Amino acid sequence: MSNEMNGAESLVRTLLAGGVDVCFTNPGTSEMHFVAALDKIPGMRCILGLFEGVVTGAADGYYRMADKPASTLLHLGPGLANGLANLHNAKKANVGIVNIVGEHATHHIAHDAPLTSDIAGVAAPMSHWVKSSASARTLAADGALAIAAARQTPGQIATLILPADTAWGMADGIAEVAPRTPPGKVSEVAVQAAAAMLRGGQRASLLLGDRALRHTCLELAGRIAAKTGCGLLTEGFNTRLERGAGRVQGERIPYVVDKALGVVAAAGNLVLVGAREPVAFFAYPNKPSVLMPQGARSTKLAGVEDDLEAALEALAIEVGALRTPPAHVAAARRPALPTGAITPAAIASILGALLPENAIVIDESVSTGRNFFPETAGAPPHDWLNNRGGSIGFGLPVAVGAAVACPDRKVVALIGDGSAMYTIQALWTMAREAQDVTIMIFANGTYNILRGELTNVGVRNPGPRAIDMLTIGRPDIDWVSLARGMGVAATRADDCETLAKAFAAGLQSGGPNLIQVKL
Amino acid sequence: MSNEMNGAESLVRTLLAGGVDVCFTNPGTSEMHFVAALDKIPGMRCILGLFEGVVTGAADGYYRMADKPASTLLHLGPGLANGLANLHNAKKANVGIVNIVGEHATHHIAHDAPLTSDIAGVAAPMSHWVKSSASARTLAADGALAIAAARQTPGQIATLILPADTAWGMADGIAEVAPRTPPGKVSEVAVQAAAAMLRGGQRASLLLGDRALRHTCLELAGRIAAKTGCGLLTEGFNTRLERGAGRVQGERIPYVVDKALGVVAAAGNLVLVGAREPVAFFAYPNKPSVLMPQGARSTKLAGVEDDLEAALEALAIEVGALRTPPAHVAAARRPALPTGAITPAAIASILGALLPENAIVIDESVSTGRNFFPETAGAPPHDWLNNRGGSIGFGLPVAVGAAVACPDRKVVALIGDGSAMYTIQALWTMAREAQDVTIMIFANGTYNILRGELTNVGVRNPGPRAIDMLTIGRPDIDWVSLARGMGVAATRADDCETLAKAFAAGLQSGGPNLIQVKL
Repeated sequence: MSNEMNGAESLVRTLLAGGVDVCFTNPGTSEMHFVAALDKIPGMRCILGLFEGVVTGAADGYYRMADKPASTLLHLGPGLANGLANLHNAKKANVGIVNIVGEHATHHIAHDAPLTSDIAGVAAPMSHWVKSSASARTLAADGALAIAAARQTPGQIATLILPADTAWGMADGIAEVAPRTPPGKVSEVAVQAAAAMLRGGQRASLLLGDRALRHTCLELAGRIAAKTGCGLLTEGFNTRLERGAGRVQGERIPYVVDKALGVVAAAGNLVLVGAREPVAFFAYPNKPSVLMPQGARSTKLAGVEDDLEAALEALAIEVGALRTPPAHVAAARRPALPTGAITPAAIASILGALLPENAIVIDESVSTGRNFFPETAGAPPHDWLNNRGGSIGFGLPVAVGAAVACPDRKVVALIGDGSAMYTIQALWTMAREAQDVTIMIFANGTYNILRGELTNVGVRNPGPRAIDMLTIGRPDIDWVSLARGMGVAATRADDCETLAKAFAAGLQSGGPNLIQVKL
Repeated sequence: MSNEMNGAESLVRTLLAGGVDVCFTNPGTSEMHFVAALDKIPGMRCILGLFEGVVTGAADGYYRMADKPASTLLHLGPGLANGLANLHNAKKANVGIVNIVGEHATHHIAHDAPLTSDIAGVAAPMSHWVKSSASARTLAADGALAIAAARQTPGQIATLILPADTAWGMADGIAEVAPRTPPGKVSEVAVQAAAAMLRGGQRASLLLGDRALRHTCLELAGRIAAKTGCGLLTEGFNTRLERGAGRVQGERIPYVVDKALGVVAAAGNLVLVGAREPVAFFAYPNKPSVLMPQGARSTKLAGVEDDLEAALEALAIEVGALRTPPAHVAAARRPALPTGAITPAAIASILGALLPENAIVIDESVSTGRNFFPETAGAPPHDWLNNRGGSIGFGLPVAVGAAVACPDRKVVALIGDGSAMYTIQALWTMAREAQDVTIMIFANGTYNILRGELTNVGVRNPGPRAIDMLTIGRPDIDWVSLARGMGVAATRADDCETLAKAFAAGLQSGGPNLIQVKL
């Protein structure tokens, strides 16, 4: 068998043996042998995206929910380039992905054909690991290295460049992936320092991030808070936050700098658990970058490279909280359904009233969603996923990947209209895969966040050219028409009653559906 | 005045003084001071794209038709990344563009905020010139360098990175752009060598590319051909080919390797004029990369860095052809309108029958359009623009830019359905700007070219996983619905009669319109 395998087949078999059994694809000519191998060898679920940003974003969503990497298949340097923005977002979220990027046959590269480019150069800024395979015989081993890199703690973006002749040449067989390096163990010193800060008499809080936002970690944090009286904070944008009724909840640091400063001032000293000292999303004239109040200190209990649950357990033991009933547990509460005109607050209430148990919420609501948390805190347990990289066009593709990872859960995508347009092609993949995704598009017809930012940088009375550049009306986008054009059922909600009805019906439908929410 | 200017204003004024008066934009927070400067200072035409691939592709189309660079405004590393694929295409077409890419304030970069990335690293693979401005006081001078780089012969991709504090800090005033370096003059030796090849008794042809495809150059080439009996070839994909009735036309080298080999074998030795020895688009097992027949030679008369018209004139003088009536002049001819089912050949006839004088044709028709040339050769004079970089998602954005450069000409965009989806957001900009663009979407529901390529690499009987990855039906895309969703009038043509009527009506309408062409 192994003697009859070409490089592409050796790579596909190595991926499958390494537990990578989903491939989000947008192939081209240089990847045809890899496509043929996917065709020949059973076991890889292949999901086509019509734009590479959909492919890489889907791999991000998949990792967040499956806790293991998917692969992507991308066409040379420009195909990878189209996927870079969502790789950036994935990288900032500590997500692991194995990118397979086709390249010309090695002997063809020097001739500077139209699609020739510096693929390793394109990959580098958004990858932790990049390698161009030198031959068909080394391809399986390189694939195994890529998988090992991607499934580290924290996850990494691994990009394997696959020259066409290494795909079509003969290989020796598959390669085994090295066992995973276990996540780091926190030192006794770090635990003592954290305990000392919590016991020190000054106001202190745990700042939780990354996998410390899973249910079991949050419960430990809640016990520590109950015992020591410390506060619980979470970062503004989280890879995957498990929340809802019965779960321990922290206070989220707001996006707006002045509000964030108020929250961190009240939080006091910070014990960092899978999080860093808070940093402003953007710089503004005469505002700080690091959002630590005057005189406050931080101590790192554990980083994203560590076993965060073990770290929190060690801290709970140290402060004698292991059996203390947790504080900050959200009570079950469904708000009443609002009526009348749709406002951000009304949307929050509708979400809180109707969000189904075990939902996966993808939140790219930008300016509309800043206050969705209080009203949804008491909804049945669900996961909430944010964009940690800030590059819009994140939400719809991540919803695709989350639905692939969790076909039995309902996915709810909350997307600003500006953001949705970047990777609108994701709707087509949802339709093709008949995914259980309900989408709200917040159609305010502007890059609303930028209207605020224009003021923040000191422009008080913007003129027509500036306003025009931040307005995505003229023409208004008809989201219902766009969605239907890609095979996704869609409707429009102009008031709260219609929105609530459409949201309930969409969730009930079991298939992809989109609601244009008029704001 | 100059003392009251911030960096952003100094840059906008420098761009305007340097003749860069169009800005294709997709701004974010870090570019708000630049937006404010565009707002305050009259003279820059700002055109918003809802995705960065639209922005960079539009700048490409603008340069091809205006013969001068536009600027783009992009949001940090990921925004630039989204525009890279069309920068790749522009770079391969020797197009000049000035990219302005926002960056965090210099003091903010070290804090690794969500949108922080290695912007210069992202820019490098698709730029000729990259610089991050160090201060508000150097920004105008850096902008002048970027303009000078972009408007070289050949055009260059110049990427200027603009940290927010260099935009908001105080500047000294505007900077002057260095005078353009004149294009190269070919040597007497090169002219003699070319003349010797044409006179040498063996079959020989001129291979024309880049600006040698403008009318005046083609006419000189036609005179040389008439005098010496040489053939005329053009590359497969051209930046801007002036063609149609009364113009000298060469034979285009086909995409498919075996067909290309037949054409170059018949062409004999090659005199290169703004073109290189032909190279296969992709490598295939057991096929050559350089498409020169056994025993054939080439000699370079002039490269893209040279004054191609002067070079051809020198060669015409050398062979005594300056007053010889040109050969290979296309006669005026309108094919009859076909009827019945739509085929690629029928589309070619409809184009030939109806293409209006002075049209700008953007051809991203991929597999459908391989034989559009013979039937359109006798249509009234028009320009034909191809993608020289091979990254699909090129056509609709380039149409936007061409329409900005030439508001009085009709733009015809011929786009494969697979290609159109990559940068479909361009439709919205066409609607907003009320552009005179008529689009045919060739809806065959597959990545048809890849079906052929799968066979070319040796896969004879693809199975369901491979076929599925190359099929973009399931669900079928409703292009009419997509277009209307973005404010563009649209219709569907299922037979030749309807297509001809819709094409004529679309051209007549004067506004953006799309025809879904069933194949």
